[in-house]
Amino acid sequence: MTFPWLEIVKSALAEDVGRGDVTTNALLGAGQGIKAKLVAREDLVVCGLSVMADVFHQVDPRVRMLPEIQEGRGAMAGNTICTIQGPARGVLTGERVALNFFQHLSGVATLTRQYVERVAGTNARIVDTRKTVPGLRLMQKYAVRVGGGHNHRMGLDDGVLIKENHITLAGGVKAAVEQIRATVHHLLRIQVECETLAQVQECLEVGVHAILLDNMDLSTTAEAVRTVNGRALVEASGNMNLDKVRAVAETGVDLISVGAITRSAASKDVSLLIDDEA
Amino acid sequence: MTFPWLEIVKSALAEDVGRGDVTTNALLGAGQGIKAKLVAREDLVVCGLSVMADVFHQVDPRVRMLPEIQEGRGAMAGNTICTIQGPARGVLTGERVALNFFQHLSGVATLTRQYVERVAGTNARIVDTRKTVPGLRLMQKYAVRVGGGHNHRMGLDDGVLIKENHITLAGGVKAAVEQIRATVHHLLRIQVECETLAQVQECLEVGVHAILLDNMDLSTTAEAVRTVNGRALVEASGNMNLDKVRAVAETGVDLISVGAITRSAASKDVSLLIDDEA
Amino acid sequence: MTFPWLEIVKSALAEDVGRGDVTTNALLGAGQGIKAKLVAREDLVVCGLSVMADVFHQVDPRVRMLPEIQEGRGAMAGNTICTIQGPARGVLTGERVALNFFQHLSGVATLTRQYVERVAGTNARIVDTRKTVPGLRLMQKYAVRVGGGHNHRMGLDDGVLIKENHITLAGGVKAAVEQIRATVHHLLRIQVECETLAQVQECLEVGVHAILLDNMDLSTTAEAVRTVNGRALVEASGNMNLDKVRAVAETGVDLISVGAITRSAASKDVSLLIDDEA
Amino acid sequence: MTFPWLEIVKSALAEDVGRGDVTTNALLGAGQGIKAKLVAREDLVVCGLSVMADVFHQVDPRVRMLPEIQEGRGAMAGNTICTIQGPARGVLTGERVALNFFQHLSGVATLTRQYVERVAGTNARIVDTRKTVPGLRLMQKYAVRVGGGHNHRMGLDDGVLIKENHITLAGGVKAAVEQIRATVHHLLRIQVECETLAQVQECLEVGVHAILLDNMDLSTTAEAVRTVNGRALVEASGNMNLDKVRAVAETGVDLISVGAITRSAASKDVSLLIDDEA
Amino acid sequence: MTFPWLEIVKSALAEDVGRGDVTTNALLGAGQGIKAKLVAREDLVVCGLSVMADVFHQVDPRVRMLPEIQEGRGAMAGNTICTIQGPARGVLTGERVALNFFQHLSGVATLTRQYVERVAGTNARIVDTRKTVPGLRLMQKYAVRVGGGHNHRMGLDDGVLIKENHITLAGGVKAAVEQIRATVHHLLRIQVECETLAQVQECLEVGVHAILLDNMDLSTTAEAVRTVNGRALVEASGNMNLDKVRAVAETGVDLISVGAITRSAASKDVSLLIDDEA
Amino acid sequence: MTFPWLEIVKSALAEDVGRGDVTTNALLGAGQGIKAKLVAREDLVVCGLSVMADVFHQVDPRVRMLPEIQEGRGAMAGNTICTIQGPARGVLTGERVALNFFQHLSGVATLTRQYVERVAGTNARIVDTRKTVPGLRLMQKYAVRVGGGHNHRMGLDDGVLIKENHITLAGGVKAAVEQIRATVHHLLRIQVECETLAQVQECLEVGVHAILLDNMDLSTTAEAVRTVNGRALVEASGNMNLDKVRAVAETGVDLISVGAITRSAASKDVSLLIDDEA
Repeated sequence: MTFPWLEIVKSALAEDVGRGDVTTNALLGAGQGIKAKLVAREDLVVCGLSVMADVFHQVDPRVRMLPEIQEGRGAMAGNTICTIQGPARGVLTGERVALNFFQHLSGVATLTRQYVERVAGTNARIVDTRKTVPGLRLMQKYAVRVGGGHNHRMGLDDGVLIKENHITLAGGVKAAVEQIRATVHHLLRIQVECETLAQVQECLEVGVHAILLDNMDLSTTAEAVRTVNGRALVEASGNMNLDKVRAVAETGVDLISVGAITRSAASKDVSLLIDDEA
Repeated sequence: MTFPWLEIVKSALAEDVGRGDVTTNALLGAGQGIKAKLVAREDLVVCGLSVMADVFHQVDPRVRMLPEIQEGRGAMAGNTICTIQGPARGVLTGERVALNFFQHLSGVATLTRQYVERVAGTNARIVDTRKTVPGLRLMQKYAVRVGGGHNHRMGLDDGVLIKENHITLAGGVKAAVEQIRATVHHLLRIQVECETLAQVQECLEVGVHAILLDNMDLSTTAEAVRTVNGRALVEASGNMNLDKVRAVAETGVDLISVGAITRSAASKDVSLLIDDEA
Repeated sequence: MTFPWLEIVKSALAEDVGRGDVTTNALLGAGQGIKAKLVAREDLVVCGLSVMADVFHQVDPRVRMLPEIQEGRGAMAGNTICTIQGPARGVLTGERVALNFFQHLSGVATLTRQYVERVAGTNARIVDTRKTVPGLRLMQKYAVRVGGGHNHRMGLDDGVLIKENHITLAGGVKAAVEQIRATVHHLLRIQVECETLAQVQECLEVGVHAILLDNMDLSTTAEAVRTVNGRALVEASGNMNLDKVRAVAETGVDLISVGAITRSAASKDVSLLIDDEA
Repeated sequence: MTFPWLEIVKSALAEDVGRGDVTTNALLGAGQGIKAKLVAREDLVVCGLSVMADVFHQVDPRVRMLPEIQEGRGAMAGNTICTIQGPARGVLTGERVALNFFQHLSGVATLTRQYVERVAGTNARIVDTRKTVPGLRLMQKYAVRVGGGHNHRMGLDDGVLIKENHITLAGGVKAAVEQIRATVHHLLRIQVECETLAQVQECLEVGVHAILLDNMDLSTTAEAVRTVNGRALVEASGNMNLDKVRAVAETGVDLISVGAITRSAASKDVSLLIDDEA
Repeated sequence: MTFPWLEIVKSALAEDVGRGDVTTNALLGAGQGIKAKLVAREDLVVCGLSVMADVFHQVDPRVRMLPEIQEGRGAMAGNTICTIQGPARGVLTGERVALNFFQHLSGVATLTRQYVERVAGTNARIVDTRKTVPGLRLMQKYAVRVGGGHNHRMGLDDGVLIKENHITLAGGVKAAVEQIRATVHHLLRIQVECETLAQVQECLEVGVHAILLDNMDLSTTAEAVRTVNGRALVEASGNMNLDKVRAVAETGVDLISVGAITRSAASKDVSLLIDDEA
Repeated sequence: MTFPWLEIVKSALAEDVGRGDVTTNALLGAGQGIKAKLVAREDLVVCGLSVMADVFHQVDPRVRMLPEIQEGRGAMAGNTICTIQGPARGVLTGERVALNFFQHLSGVATLTRQYVERVAGTNARIVDTRKTVPGLRLMQKYAVRVGGGHNHRMGLDDGVLIKENHITLAGGVKAAVEQIRATVHHLLRIQVECETLAQVQECLEVGVHAILLDNMDLSTTAEAVRTVNGRALVEASGNMNLDKVRAVAETGVDLISVGAITRSAASKDVSLLIDDEA
C-alpha cells in the first residue's frame, strides 16, 4: 500500500508544475513521442526507481520506464540506469521532479552504503535517526535500507526513547523507566539515552532493552560496552562520520546511528538523455 | 498568506508524531512547563525561525518562541538563537521536527551566503534552480533569499526556459522561440539553454531575454558574454562549486545558478538546551 | 497532468449529488443502459468536452462519450455535439453537472470568439483578466484560448502588474519599477497600469515591458500608442464591450483585455436527449 | 458552520495567489497600512459581504472590513458599500478574489430581485435551479435568497424530481411515482416534470406534491393551473426571462424557476478605492 | 458514485496500517500468493461485501474477492461467505480492516432484520435515526436497507424535523411550522416531535406531513394513531427494543424508529481461513 | 496535538449537517441564546467530554461547555454531566453529533471498566485489540484507557504480532521469529500467536517477548502460564466475555484482550435538556 508515497509525489508535482509547463505545452504536440535514458554521472547506489515511475505515471500514465540496473545495485559513471519512453510532453514535464527524487534517494542510499562498508565484519549495524528532511522520512528510511542500513524507530510512536531532557524532567532514569512501563503497550521496547557510565549502570539496574551512548569518546564507549556485557543493546550516537565510524564499531557496540545519511547526503548526479534514434 | 507552509509543517508533524509521542506523554504531566534555548553548534546563517514557531504552534499554541538573533543574521558556534518556553510536552514533542526544518533551511541559507560572498563586487547574482528537495521548494527558495541569493523561476509555469531537449524536438532555436511567442502570455520572458556559441548567436538573432550557458568552460563563457554584449541576460550553469564560482563571475555573466545550494546543503548543527533555572 | 481539473469536477459532483441521486437510484436498475445525444439549442463554440467526459467518468467509468463536433468548432442550433452511452444511472446522475460545465465554458468560448472576430485584421489580441469565477479560473482561461483569445497572467505570481494602488503606495512609477526589478526573478516581465499620458511617458523612461491604459478614451489611447511607438506593449483595458472593441483595436494597441468574457458570459443552451432507439 | 464556504475561499485564493503576489510583496513593506472603500459603479443588491470578509481574513487576519450598507440592501452607483482597513499587503493581495466573489454574488442577488419585483402581488415565488456555476452552488443559492427568491432543492439528494427521462425509463408517471414512494424516506416530497396536460392529469391521479410544467406556453400553463386546482404545487419552468415572467406569474402558478439567475447573471461593477487620507 | 465510501476505507486503512505492516512485510515475499475464505462463526445477514472488496483493492488491486453468499442473504454459522485470492501480503495486511467493516455492517443488517421480522404483517416500517457511529452514517444506513429497514432522513438538511427544543424556542408548534413553511424549499416535508396528545392535535390543525411520538406509552400511542386517523404519518420513537416493538407496531403506527440498530449493534463473528490447498 | 481528532469531528459534522440544518436555521434567530445540560439516563463512565467540546467549537466557537463530572469518573442515572451554553443554533445543530461521540465513547469506557473490575486483584491487565470501529480507533483506544484498560499495539506498524497465518506462510514459529529479528527495528517487540502448547514451547526456545494464547480453554491456559513461567508475557485471547474473564485472569495470564470493548459496546443513554431558566 503505497498511497502515502503517491501523495508526496503529487505534492512535488504540484509545486513544480503549478498551472502547467508553459514551455513544453507550447513547443510539443500532444502526439509527439520520445525515448530517453537516465545515465549516471558519478558512481552511485540506485534508489528511487519506483518513485520515478510514480512521477511519470501521474504526469501521463502512458509513459513507460524500464530499469537497466536494479534498485540497490551500484551504477558507475556512464551507466544507463533506466530507459523511459512515451509522450514527450509527459517525459519533459515530469523530468525534473523525477530526477529530484531519484538523485536525493540515491544520495542517501549511497552514503549509507559507505558507512555500512566501513563497519563490515564488526557487530555493528548502521541505523538512521529522526533527523530527516521534513516530508520525506518514509522515503529516506527506505533508501537507508536499500543502502544496507537498518532503521531506528520511524517516529515518536513506535518505540520509547527516553532522552536527556525526559530524564531531567521525570526525576532520573529509574523513575522514568518505571513510569513508562506502567503505561506504554507491551510491544514497545524502551531505550535510554545516557551521558555517563553511571547512567548506563542505572539503566542496567532498572532493566532496559537498549542504551544510547550520547557523544561518548571511544574509550568510554568501550567501557560502556564492557559494563553492559550483552544485557542490553548498545547504540553509539553523535556526530558520526566516515573517518571514525570503524573505530566506534570496533568498540563492540550493536548499533551506530548516523544523522548525516538522511540530513546531509549530497544528491547524486544523473542526466536524462534523449535517445537520438527515437 | 502562509497556508502552503502550514500544510508542509502539518505533514512533517504527522510523519514524526504519528499516533502520539509515547515517551513524552507517559513521562510528563500536562501541566509541566519548560524553558529552553536553541544554541548554534557551528557558525550559520539563521533561517527558519518562523517555520519553527509554526511547528511549536501546531503542537501546542501555548508554546512561545523568542528570537535572540534575527532571521538572516549570522550566528556563531555557542550563540543562543532563540528561547522557547511553554508546556514541556509541546516543546519536546515538536523539538525534532522544528530542528529538522531549521537545520535544513539554515544549511541552505549558509551555503548560499558563501557563494554570494565569493562573487562580491562582480556583476553576478547567485540564483537557485528547480533542483530542490521535493515538497520543500518554497521554503528552500525563501532560504536562498535569506542567504542573499536570488530566485530563478519557481516552477514550470512562471517563466519559459527552452532547454536542449525542447530545441531538438521543436526543430531548432528559432522555431522554438517563435512558437513560444505565439502562445505564452506577454508577461513571461523567454530564456534559452545554449550548448554552443552558434546557438548563442541564434538566440541573439531571434531575440530572447536571457541565455543559459550550459556547462561551458571559462573562456567560452567569456566569449559568450562578449558576443551577447548586453543584448540579453547571461546565466552560467552547470556543476558550479565554491572553488570556481569567482572565476565564472569574473567573465561578466549576470547570473550564476547553483543547484548545490538547494539539493546538497549540509544541515547545520544546533542543540535545544533545557534552561536549568526553569 | 489534469488533476487540478479532476478535483474541480469532484467538488462539483459532491455539491450536486450529495448523499446520492434519490430519484435515479430509486427508479432505474443498476443494469439499465441508455444512449443519449447532446444537442445545441443555440449557436455556440464547443468547449468543455473533456470536462464533461471527466464528469461522467467519475460518476461511472463505463459511460462513454463520443464527440460529433470537435472542441473549438462552432455548433449551430440543432446540431448534435456528442453522443453519450452507458449505464442509465450514471448518465442521469452526471447530466446536470456535465451540462453546467459545458454550458458555462461554451459561453466563455463563444463570447471570446465574438470579440476576436470583431478585431480581425487589426494588430490587437483579445486577452482575459483575473476577473474570473472563483474556482474556475484555469478552465475559463482554457475556454478563452479555445475561443481564439489569449491569456493574460494566470495569477499574482506569474507576471508583475503594477497597479494604481501600488504606484501610490510605492511613491511613483519609477520607484515602483526599480524596486521590483531588484527582487523579482528575471523571467517575469513588468507591466504598469497608467491613468495618464504622463505616466505612460514615465514608464517609457524607466523602461517597462508593457503598459496598461486604464479606461482611457479612444483619442487618448491612440495618443498613447503613438507615444509608446513600439517601445512597449500597449494594453487597453476597462469596460470593454462588443460595440466599441473594434474602434479600440484600430488605435493600434497590442492587447485588449476583456473582463466580461470570463465574468459575465451567458451560459449556452443545450439539451441532453435520450435516443429513442436505445 | 461555514466551513464549506471557507474551503471555497481557500481554493479561490490558491488559484489566484499561487506562490505569492510578486508585485505587492516586492513593493510594500510588511508594516504598511491601508484604508480603502468599496464603491458601487452601478446599482446593485449587496451580496457577499461575509465572503469578502473571509477572503481578507484568510489572507491576513488583521484586515478589518466594516459594512456601510447591509447585506441584501440596494446600493446605488457611487455608494460606499464597505470600508476595509489593515495591512496594505493583505488588502491588495486579497482584493481581486474578494471582488470576484462579491461582484458575482451581487450579480445573482440583483438579477433575482428584478424577477421577484416583476411578479410582485401575484402568488408566484421565484425559485432557482440546479443550473449553477460548478463549485459555487451553496453561495449562489444564498444569493438567490438575499435577492428575495426561494431555493428549489439543493441537489439530487434532498428532493425527488422525476424528469422526462426518468418517466420514459421507468415506464410512465404512475409506475415511477409508486416505485419512488416505496423507497425514499418519508420526509422527501415528489415532484414530476410534465410535458403535457395528460401527464398533469396522471400526476393528480397518482398524487404528487408538485408538478413542473416544462416549457408550456401561457394558455397551457393556465389550463394546467386550473386542472390542478390546488391539489399540488405548480411550477413553471423553461427559458424564463424578465419580459415574460409577469405573464407566467399571472397564470396562477406557485413557483417559477429561473435558471438564468444563477447561470447567466452578469457580475456587478464595483471598485476598491484607496482612501487618500489613510 | 461511491467515492465518499472510498475515502472512509482509505482513512480506516491509514489508521490501521500506519507506516506499514511490519510483520507481514518482514515475513512474506512480494510474490507469495494466498487463497482464503471468509467463514461465518454465527448466523448473520451478509452486509459489506463491496466495502471489503474496496479495502483489499486499495491495499493491492490484484486481490480478488468472490462472494459465495449474496449481499442481504442470510449466512449460517459455518457457511463460507466469500473467497479471497491474491498476493499474501495484501490479503493479510487488509484482513483486519476488511473484517472490521464487514462485521460491523453485518451486525447492523442482522439486527435490523430481527426488528423487521418482528413487525411482519403490520403496517409499520422499521426506520433508522441519526444516532449513528460518527463517520459511518452512509454505510450504516445502507446496512439498514440491506437488513430490510427503511431510512429516515440522512442528515439535518434533507428533511425538517421540529423537535421539542425547537418548539420551545420558536414559541409553539403552530408558530414553528408556519415559520418553516415560509423558508424551506418545497420538496422537504415537515415532521414534528410531540410529547402530548394536545401537541398531536395542534399538528393536525396546522397540517404537517408526519408526527413523531416521543416516548409515549402503548395506549397513548394507540390514541394518537386514532386521533391522526391517516391525516399524517405517525412515527413511534424512544428506547425501542425487540421485546416491545411488535406491540408498538400493532398500535397502527406507520414508522418505528430504532436507534439501537445503528448505535448498539454487536458486530458479527467471522474468520478468515487460509485454504490449505492454496 | 489533537488534529487527527479534529479531522474526525469535521467529517462527522459534514456527514450530519450536510448543506445546513434547515430546521434550526429556519426557526432560530442568529442572536438567540440557550443554556442546556447533559444528563445521564443510565450509569456510565464519563468519556468524550473534549470531543464534544470540539464538536460544538467547530459548529460555533462561542458555545461553552462546562464539565460537572470529570472524564473517567462515574455518572449515575440522573446526574448532570456537563452544562452547555451559547448560541442556540450552534447548540442544536451540533447536539446529535456531540452526543453520538459521547455516547459511543462512554459505552466503550463503561464496558472496559466492567472488565477491569472483574479482574481486580489478579495480575491480568485488560487490553484492547485492532477490532475497532473503522475511523474511530484512536478515540476508542483512548476510551479504553479512560475505562482503566490498557492498549495493545495501535496498528500494524508499532508492534510485531506473528499470527497463525504468518506462521504457516513463513514455515513455522522459529523461522518466522528469526526472519523478523533480522529486519524490524530494535525498539519493536515480538509476540507470537499460539494454538498449541507445542507452539508455546517453540516460542520459548526461540525467545519472544510475548505469547498470545488463541482461544485456549482454561486448563490449557493455566498449563501455558506454568510452562512460560515468566519468560514471556502471556496474553489470553478469544471470545472473552464478562462471565469468564475472572476465571481466565486467575490462570495467571498477564494480559487479556477483549475485542468486545471496542466493537460491540452499547452506546450509553444521555439527554440534552434545555435549562428552563435560561
